[in-house]
Amino acid sequence: MVETTQAASPAKQPLRIALAGLGTVGVGVIKLIEANAGLIARRAGRPIMITAVSARSRGRDRGIDLASYAWEDDMTALAARPDVDVVVELVGGSDGPALVLARNAIAQGKALITANKAMIAHHGMALAQAAEQKGVAIRFEAAVAGGIPVIKGLREGAAANRVERIFGILNGTCNYILSTMEDTGRDFAEVLAEAQAKGYAEADPTFDIEGIDAAHKLSILSAIAFGAKIDFASVDTQGISRILAADIAQADALGYCIRLIGTAEADAGPDGTPGLFQRVAPHLVPVDNLLAHVDGPTNAVVVEGNFSGRLLFQGAGAGDGPTASAVVADIIDIARGMDTGFEADMAFSIPVDGLEAMAPAPSGHRIGRSYIRFLVADRPGVLAEITAAMRDAGVSIESLIQKGQATQGGAVLVAIVTHEVAEAAVTEALRLLDGSPSLVAQPLVMQILGN
Amino acid sequence: MVETTQAASPAKQPLRIALAGLGTVGVGVIKLIEANAGLIARRAGRPIMITAVSARSRGRDRGIDLASYAWEDDMTALAARPDVDVVVELVGGSDGPALVLARNAIAQGKALITANKAMIAHHGMALAQAAEQKGVAIRFEAAVAGGIPVIKGLREGAAANRVERIFGILNGTCNYILSTMEDTGRDFAEVLAEAQAKGYAEADPTFDIEGIDAAHKLSILSAIAFGAKIDFASVDTQGISRILAADIAQADALGYCIRLIGTAEADAGPDGTPGLFQRVAPHLVPVDNLLAHVDGPTNAVVVEGNFSGRLLFQGAGAGDGPTASAVVADIIDIARGMDTGFEADMAFSIPVDGLEAMAPAPSGHRIGRSYIRFLVADRPGVLAEITAAMRDAGVSIESLIQKGQATQGGAVLVAIVTHEVAEAAVTEALRLLDGSPSLVAQPLVMQILGN
Repeated sequence: MVETTQAASPAKQPLRIALAGLGTVGVGVIKLIEANAGLIARRAGRPIMITAVSARSRGRDRGIDLASYAWEDDMTALAARPDVDVVVELVGGSDGPALVLARNAIAQGKALITANKAMIAHHGMALAQAAEQKGVAIRFEAAVAGGIPVIKGLREGAAANRVERIFGILNGTCNYILSTMEDTGRDFAEVLAEAQAKGYAEADPTFDIEGIDAAHKLSILSAIAFGAKIDFASVDTQGISRILAADIAQADALGYCIRLIGTAEADAGPDGTPGLFQRVAPHLVPVDNLLAHVDGPTNAVVVEGNFSGRLLFQGAGAGDGPTASAVVADIIDIARGMDTGFEADMAFSIPVDGLEAMAPAPSGHRIGRSYIRFLVADRPGVLAEITAAMRDAGVSIESLIQKGQATQGGAVLVAIVTHEVAEAAVTEALRLLDGSPSLVAQPLVMQILGN
Repeated sequence: MVETTQAASPAKQPLRIALAGLGTVGVGVIKLIEANAGLIARRAGRPIMITAVSARSRGRDRGIDLASYAWEDDMTALAARPDVDVVVELVGGSDGPALVLARNAIAQGKALITANKAMIAHHGMALAQAAEQKGVAIRFEAAVAGGIPVIKGLREGAAANRVERIFGILNGTCNYILSTMEDTGRDFAEVLAEAQAKGYAEADPTFDIEGIDAAHKLSILSAIAFGAKIDFASVDTQGISRILAADIAQADALGYCIRLIGTAEADAGPDGTPGLFQRVAPHLVPVDNLLAHVDGPTNAVVVEGNFSGRLLFQGAGAGDGPTASAVVADIIDIARGMDTGFEADMAFSIPVDGLEAMAPAPSGHRIGRSYIRFLVADRPGVLAEITAAMRDAGVSIESLIQKGQATQGGAVLVAIVTHEVAEAAVTEALRLLDGSPSLVAQPLVMQILGN
């Protein structure tokens, strides 16, 4: 520990920020830096000063005064400006101008901060490696779970632990839709339309409701937690669009709520080959689980460490204020001097070269309980057919509920909860039933989240 | 952003640790560093190596082999050893050898890591100032909320925010006792004895059950959250020893659980004078509150930021593994290089000289709902006397429950929940009743935690 003297510290110059993207989050960052300027300067050790901004449209009224910031029509040119130390990318999109700007920033030897989960999920390894070579920081706290400092919590707070599992609610739109369906008994399409009207869901909601956004975030967390190279393509991803109000009612009657859960763990697989299991899918969550009381557009992540035990991080998963809070936390870290030397290498906790390329773990051997929902024709023999398939596949049934009357377009709902069984057995049972004229829709399988 | 080259980095030498205190936590730290050595070295950028240890008794069997570590009989001498870079103090006690060792470490220009909440609550300002002058780090993640990285979350993760309030469950012993009373219907003394037998409570439980331990932790969090000098002496502190099984049953019937809550906020007071409100006391927690489902020896802290909204950090509040996880996280931060330059000044987020000496905020003007429990003699006129006092003090009653029969040693329980009212009015009502022969015990007042 060498003594450092304050007089020798160069840390009193303002840290100069270029901001690309002036949507909700970009405007939130400007508002935050203006509103909390004094305390930020005290905590950062120097003022944080936005010097230049850029967005697709200059003229749009954003409700804030941009006159004191230089404007660049070409956002990718922000990185080369001599009055910029740190580039903040809030444009979005995995490629395109966001990626060009990110590459430019690093090439110019400037720190990069981004809220862009898609870009990090697809290009995070290459960007982090380039940043390491340049000795600059790349930070993306806002890319996962909005305002919750979960990347810091995992990379630094839990750094002493071998992580055994991470699981969480990573998409606020889905959580809003599912908890609203639960509260109101209404169907998916209706609640989605309302979420779009309220601004909780986008005009094209595909990335959210099909689990892709959550999979982006999970793949980033997995890399940090398990020391693995990001492998977004291998995340087993299912969305929530097939969930019926009747599923939610059924789950509720059994003591569960339904949530879109991302889960990842290192899994040696049936033959002992090391692998990384990553899944985003709707799960039945027992009411006594940490995640069962996470309602509305909230995110929550549980990190299971071999010494820490379970750590829960919870808060707003989106929104201008929370996301801006995460972006500016990254800026303050850099202002404080946490981007020099080894710090530049720790975007994913260890240098990129040290991250393992872990094979995707198979899931068939995984033991758990499942909820299986059938929509069947209302005629004799259907239950016998389903239960025979379960028996033949070795799936033991814990409970079976058949609703007395046809509710779903003339079909009858049959819901089964299995005992603990390998996932492959459930798959086999459904294969045996495949093509049966008794089934009027593809069955829906949801895992029950284990404690 | 100046480019740094890896070759020039001195960060590949092992970081050498001296460990004072070999109780549960100290042994946990050794076990963790041994068990996770490989991944810690990868994440820290260099190996973490314990070189020397000390404790009160050398001979005691601790279930681990200490042969590879140098032993010092005088723990305060650890700091001067040339083979030590970082001193980890796990001895405990606000003064005595722990404090001498802490001062020695800083005087020797070595980083200090401690889990000692009492020492930080009493001497944290002087220690941090000495550390700043020496340019060394002082870290104490393990001093608050066990394994939960809440100090990091507050100091770094929420650094962009003006904090509006912090509140949380900061003592696992009290939370275990209260949630067990709730689950079993048993009385305080019986559950405390069981907690002692299970190791969840100490032989002398005073610091835990009287709220002192939680007040230590709250005063540390307050300093970071509000940029205030630590003021442990001003924490309004009440314990849980007067809570009856009947209070818990009553609260439950009204839709609340009872938890020991620490809460702090900047409060301008009735005359506009800036002040810091800090209280540790049992509260009634509404079942829909974030903290209502925190059971057993768990801790949870909510940080309310002006941009982040509510952030919840939850996990194990004590225990060897979780506490060791927090201690080693601090070690890894230092190994990564986060203790140089400005970083050495951020133990409390800003340098000690910049922390305000905030006056304690008065509480009489604070508006809230209260639960007031009386034990009264079973005779006519008692209710009239109580309700008249409430009326005369301007306290409006939302609900009043009198148990039909005498249950507490011949006394009858009367529980009142007030409408929102200034705390001073409740105090006045109780003053009016003071000395009344109708009351067979001092009334118990608990605030209802506001959302």
